[in-house]
Amino acid sequence: MKVKGALDYFVIATIFILVVFQECVNGRTFLHSIPRPHPDDAANFARWLVSQSSWGVLNTISSDWGGAPFGNVVSFSDGLPDKGKGIPYFYLTTLDPTARNALKDQRSSLTLSEYSLGTCGKSDPENPTCSKITLIGKLKLVYGNSKEAEFARTALFVKHPEMKGWPKSHNFEVFKLEIENIFMINWFGGPKPLTVDQYLHAKM
Amino acid sequence: MKVKGALDYFVIATIFILVVFQECVNGRTFLHSIPRPHPDDAANFARWLVSQSSWGVLNTISSDWGGAPFGNVVSFSDGLPDKGKGIPYFYLTTLDPTARNALKDQRSSLTLSEYSLGTCGKSDPENPTCSKITLIGKLKLVYGNSKEAEFARTALFVKHPEMKGWPKSHNFEVFKLEIENIFMINWFGGPKPLTVDQYLHAKM
Repeated sequence: MKVKGALDYFVIATIFILVVFQECVNGRTFLHSIPRPHPDDAANFARWLVSQSSWGVLNTISSDWGGAPFGNVVSFSDGLPDKGKGIPYFYLTTLDPTARNALKDQRSSLTLSEYSLGTCGKSDPENPTCSKITLIGKLKLVYGNSKEAEFARTALFVKHPEMKGWPKSHNFEVFKLEIENIFMINWFGGPKPLTVDQYLHAKM
Repeated sequence: MKVKGALDYFVIATIFILVVFQECVNGRTFLHSIPRPHPDDAANFARWLVSQSSWGVLNTISSDWGGAPFGNVVSFSDGLPDKGKGIPYFYLTTLDPTARNALKDQRSSLTLSEYSLGTCGKSDPENPTCSKITLIGKLKLVYGNSKEAEFARTALFVKHPEMKGWPKSHNFEVFKLEIENIFMINWFGGPKPLTVDQYLHAKM
């Protein structure tokens, strides 16, 4: 009886582990190849947060809704896995308001939360120790046959394989955020001072 | 021997389940008490997505950065767990740009992704079947001694227990998003037609 009970548990536990673990991995990036930098190392921390994230909220000025700030959930990539360059690239269609807005007014920002990475432990998403970053700048179309567009498509398709198969008829195009200011909170004491130059030249 | 091996597994499996499961729960809401409505049921689907979410990106017009749309990661609550009323309440301090911006220009939006709930399976966050919602409206201060502020504080503190202990010196205040337009994509075929009235009167 004891053996039978224990073996039943063996089977049930194995199925449960597989289900739960699969769920975790599907739901968000669960394992990180680059360790979390120290919060004081602002440039590397910011680059880590951007390169480890796969999606965020991209903001534009809405022409449809009286100039309201319009946030939209988008996938992005700043390079090949663990080889991010810090500049976020997007794959957008003008069927969506975000791309249409950007073509009229390039002012934009991209916002990411460390909470999505699952590395905030028990901290609330609004707790300053659960880091967040907003890259503020101009959202620009990258012309399709440029070297940069080629780099961006590779960076995007490797991190978001299904993009490659998205309908041709939707005319998806590569956009990039040209960063002008960085707002990052990753500890107590307010936003970390960080210039775009420090961010782009961080040694990951 | 068989019994011992099985019992060892029993202990190891139990610890592993507890660790992995805890990780999942910390990382994001993992168990949902209200089942995901059918995507065609736009009003209930929107209310489900808002009530099940605990954080999002709150967008304002930035007075610091030339009127750029500024997204900020915030926690919110629309009511007690599974008793959400659809109106998102926030706990903000003017030490943070978002509250300062709202007091100068109330135009705002709140953006949420179902990806954070872990119910998008293998879909990419930008795939229309992984739902997303943007509530567009005015971000307004709720006066501290009103009945509404009392309701909001309870709604916030139950879902975000640590808020109650946040520093008094930061003068956190309750804000709410007065919704004027709703942009939701939860399937193919573009945004779902959904009025604010349909959203607010949905029978959850």
